[in-house]
Amino acid sequence: VATTPARNEDAWLAEAFARLVPGPRVRLGMGHDAAVLRHDGRDVVLKTDTVVDGVDFVLAACGPAAAARKAVAVTLSDLAAVGAVPRALLVSAILPRGVTFETFAAIARGLLAAAAEFGADLVGGDTSVADAPLSLSVFATGDLRDGGPVGRSGAKPGQVLSVTGPLGGSIFGRHLTFSPRFDASAALLARRVPSAMMDLSDGLSRDLPRICRASGVGADVDPAAIPIHDDVRRHRDGRSPLEHALHDGEDFELLLAHDPLPPSVEAELLALRVRLHAIGVVTATPGAVRLVHPDGPIPLVPQGFDHLAGSASPPEA
Amino acid sequence: VATTPARNEDAWLAEAFARLVPGPRVRLGMGHDAAVLRHDGRDVVLKTDTVVDGVDFVLAACGPAAAARKAVAVTLSDLAAVGAVPRALLVSAILPRGVTFETFAAIARGLLAAAAEFGADLVGGDTSVADAPLSLSVFATGDLRDGGPVGRSGAKPGQVLSVTGPLGGSIFGRHLTFSPRFDASAALLARRVPSAMMDLSDGLSRDLPRICRASGVGADVDPAAIPIHDDVRRHRDGRSPLEHALHDGEDFELLLAHDPLPPSVEAELLALRVRLHAIGVVTATPGAVRLVHPDGPIPLVPQGFDHLAGSASPPEA
Repeated sequence: VATTPARNEDAWLAEAFARLVPGPRVRLGMGHDAAVLRHDGRDVVLKTDTVVDGVDFVLAACGPAAAARKAVAVTLSDLAAVGAVPRALLVSAILPRGVTFETFAAIARGLLAAAAEFGADLVGGDTSVADAPLSLSVFATGDLRDGGPVGRSGAKPGQVLSVTGPLGGSIFGRHLTFSPRFDASAALLARRVPSAMMDLSDGLSRDLPRICRASGVGADVDPAAIPIHDDVRRHRDGRSPLEHALHDGEDFELLLAHDPLPPSVEAELLALRVRLHAIGVVTATPGAVRLVHPDGPIPLVPQGFDHLAGSASPPEA
Repeated sequence: VATTPARNEDAWLAEAFARLVPGPRVRLGMGHDAAVLRHDGRDVVLKTDTVVDGVDFVLAACGPAAAARKAVAVTLSDLAAVGAVPRALLVSAILPRGVTFETFAAIARGLLAAAAEFGADLVGGDTSVADAPLSLSVFATGDLRDGGPVGRSGAKPGQVLSVTGPLGGSIFGRHLTFSPRFDASAALLARRVPSAMMDLSDGLSRDLPRICRASGVGADVDPAAIPIHDDVRRHRDGRSPLEHALHDGEDFELLLAHDPLPPSVEAELLALRVRLHAIGVVTATPGAVRLVHPDGPIPLVPQGFDHLAGSASPPEA
């Protein structure tokens, strides 16, 4: 009876948690960027994310404070995606056995600085020591903005797909220094723009199918419309700028589906320095995610990072 | 200017987070079993705890489902300690690179079963793969019972120190199979019994000084009054049953300071199968934690588990 799903994170999670029935308190559960729970009469937004030395950062290169900031920022990026404001942070740290107090204190300083930067209270945590690389799991709670939550499941055929900024090349620094798009999230929620939204953590080619799956729709993407970050020029691997913009990941821009914007709304957003780059349209064909080249459509094959597949390189045959 | 504190968890945390000023929303912050945050007009209780293969369990011996249950139970035990009821769970998992779907699915089943057992909603999580042992960080939210929160800082000189059950020998199985003392927590909170409370995770000798430090008090413990679990007989290491009860850790019973109980309250608690074992008294001497033997008092030296010290054995000279 047991099936063994393909070795990727989404397939394993879908199969292993197939029997999970969300309780009556759950407004947004697994399969969205963050959870929203009805808590004692109010909505609380909840999210956890983890960064590990050697996977999400290289401690010897970036130092403990930058690693700590990334741990906080990747978690809060998901709060921005569902339309929430950060409130509290807790951190579970696994420290390598020989950790020095200097490293420990630098992690603490990085966490405190990140909490202050994003207006959250650091309220607790847990420390373990193991024969393991440094890892930091950040748990964040948030309050919903008016108009939230925005999940992944609200995209409708005919809507526009947009991203909030240029993609690709984050490995050259932005994956550590980015700021979660709370500015864009606030401006978009206030105008009730997004029908579905998520942050781009694993690459457009892996994340766009997630919004499509959750919404039961497809997507036609115009490759010429994808905004490409200048940083992709720093790659020296022979892959095209478009490939990097589609697959690199860790952009932490927002991807959203929305009705066409009235010019007045577009102008208001631009005045707030929030620019939506339209990259395609939502289609009615569930799961069909295509790049529409001038000579015809081709499937957009996910090549972004998958923890279980283990790399961001093209899948083997 | 930099000081290097002694290599133990409490000293490192105190030094590294010395500059943390709790925000106005924080009702209970670092230094208590769980945090309590004012959230959009309501109190939300927050806690994270982590278990790691080779430190908190042996995966090859106990299996993934028992490890998952322990991850949930150790976290919820802290909610019981502050007087809260569990609501939502999120789990960050770090999986060893070669993890099989069978193991992954068994962890998921263990998490779902534990969430159901304790009446909580599993609402989200995060999966990483690394060259690391399996670790599970559980983040729990809870609602306060009337009379909560109970922190560690409310113990007053002259009060009684009690534990809710026998101590020692948990390594023979109870460290995996224990249930957080929600029964005792509910019965005690309903009668406003605890002035200060915590769960016994690292051993009485390490945890009692924490309540004393937080409350600015001392403690005189009667060694003959400490309830010793039958499981300590299974140790074959020459240490006395009392030593095991004081230092083994992972009992997950509650330790509390309270005014002497009126007999009627004691009878009500017993009718609910909640028995308080009085083990000593709170004294006015900050930090003086003593075992009062018939021939005089001796300091109770912490020997319970400390992650940074790395073992539960007596400290080296």
